[in-house]
Amino acid sequence: MGGALDPAVATGRNEVRRALADLGSGSRLVVGVSGGADSLALAAVTAFVASREAWSLRAVVVDHGLQTGSPEVAATAAAQLGTLGVDAEVVAVEVGTGGGPEAAARTARLCALAAAAQRADADAVLLAHTLDDQAETVLLGLGRGSGPRSIAGMVGRDGLWRRPFLTLRRADTEQICRASGLSWWVDPHNSDPAYRRSRIRTEVMPVLEDVLGGGVAAALARTADQLRADNDLLDDLAAQVGDPHDVRALASLPPALRSRVLRRAALAAGADPAALGAVHLAGLDRLVTDWHGQLRIELPGGVSAGRRGPSLTFIATPVGQ
Amino acid sequence: MGGALDPAVATGRNEVRRALADLGSGSRLVVGVSGGADSLALAAVTAFVASREAWSLRAVVVDHGLQTGSPEVAATAAAQLGTLGVDAEVVAVEVGTGGGPEAAARTARLCALAAAAQRADADAVLLAHTLDDQAETVLLGLGRGSGPRSIAGMVGRDGLWRRPFLTLRRADTEQICRASGLSWWVDPHNSDPAYRRSRIRTEVMPVLEDVLGGGVAAALARTADQLRADNDLLDDLAAQVGDPHDVRALASLPPALRSRVLRRAALAAGADPAALGAVHLAGLDRLVTDWHGQLRIELPGGVSAGRRGPSLTFIATPVGQ
Repeated sequence: MGGALDPAVATGRNEVRRALADLGSGSRLVVGVSGGADSLALAAVTAFVASREAWSLRAVVVDHGLQTGSPEVAATAAAQLGTLGVDAEVVAVEVGTGGGPEAAARTARLCALAAAAQRADADAVLLAHTLDDQAETVLLGLGRGSGPRSIAGMVGRDGLWRRPFLTLRRADTEQICRASGLSWWVDPHNSDPAYRRSRIRTEVMPVLEDVLGGGVAAALARTADQLRADNDLLDDLAAQVGDPHDVRALASLPPALRSRVLRRAALAAGADPAALGAVHLAGLDRLVTDWHGQLRIELPGGVSAGRRGPSLTFIATPVGQ
Repeated sequence: MGGALDPAVATGRNEVRRALADLGSGSRLVVGVSGGADSLALAAVTAFVASREAWSLRAVVVDHGLQTGSPEVAATAAAQLGTLGVDAEVVAVEVGTGGGPEAAARTARLCALAAAAQRADADAVLLAHTLDDQAETVLLGLGRGSGPRSIAGMVGRDGLWRRPFLTLRRADTEQICRASGLSWWVDPHNSDPAYRRSRIRTEVMPVLEDVLGGGVAAALARTADQLRADNDLLDDLAAQVGDPHDVRALASLPPALRSRVLRRAALAAGADPAALGAVHLAGLDRLVTDWHGQLRIELPGGVSAGRRGPSLTFIATPVGQ
């Protein structure tokens, strides 16, 4: 490819460099690939940066096996990556049903990538989520109404996991593919109204963009960044609070801190983090701030909470009860 | 009205009692009325509670003069309130143009209510915003992308101002009107696509409810409550930080706190709070965390900010520059 560097490719490379600035030469990377434009683009720009930085790169093409032809889609993606000099393996996964189809596919995918990272002794695993994915995540979280945590979106870096493309638009990743001579697969699930995220993408976002005058995805992503910073600090402060069962101390905390201390205490007692919601935290809060002899409250994960004099108590519910 | 008390009326009364629990007998209330179901319902249930609590109540019906027939709408509302024994006055306001038609109408309305409150030496001014209004406010704030503050929504109590109906749905207020024998005016602006809030109400919310499976308005309102609690605490913590110009101290703060300290410093220097946005705060942040000799940055409200050695400096821009 002669001529000037495509701006989308330049941006993609810069974002990969920025996201991996802490890695020295000889580092080992794994990139997760679906065959869609976003992950093919990420693999392509990472291949370029990796060659300059003397990183080794391995692409893991995940075949979810959910659609006819999915092995061919995976093989095509792997073959295209091969033309870019990227070492690619196809991993077929079994998708369960827990938490709904989207969550089950996500769990299977992340497990496969984590296993591949372990086999490769990787220093980082790259995921191709874009600004559009982030905006959709915020809206999905808003619908749950389970608080700041659920709308703070995805983080650019979380241990091994890195998301260099959180500032890129989905259209940028398609442009990167075009400029790199890559053809991508369009997942029919992405516009299938059976999936909530698809409907956010195809029905909600266009209406929001139209009504609020454009720039909504970027605004949602920006808000997520700020909320995550807020949430991180408040979580840190909550972790520094002494005894999370001392009712008098709890009552004197600002509500934003008390709710987080109560959440930590419930999780420490074994409550299920995925299912512990606003309604349970409100019940815990009333045990502290509005005590009038109420019954113990049940929390998800087989834990109950109640008052004993000046203390909150958490008890694991015996199995079979 | 014989028979059982309508549940919506009961809820409305309870919420008014809860919102005004701190007021003693003899307190003076002003309630703002537009003629719509929400404010007529609020006036009606407040009239009942006020008679039991020995509060005096004055309804101020605001005629915005924006539509033909608006004096008649105001007069009809005042007459209906009269049948409930509520002392009602009509106040005609001049709506300017600043900040767009919705903001200008809001400003004119709040000025008229504040003046009426002063004339009546009121202890509280009641506004009829509902949970639906709150949800719309959150979505409008999300579209602006100017951070947690803009999506924390409306507060139930702010000085004289009280919003007892933030937990009621708009449909509840219509039910209260029906049960109280009140007919209400349907503002054509509420479904006029020229208004952003109307489009949120008529186009965005139905799609969101459909995609996210109902309960979205309540989820948005719940999120707003939690974000407000978070934001209040972080603002309090920021107010306790010592010198907001000391770069080294600023650099050591967590990002969530630093952004708020910088915002306070900019406002203290005269920056315009309504126009100071994420982009300005990001510029201020770079003066602290990414200093490489950049130029001073301009803030809305005729203030500029820059570095002088180890300090941030804010300078008012001379008039006419």
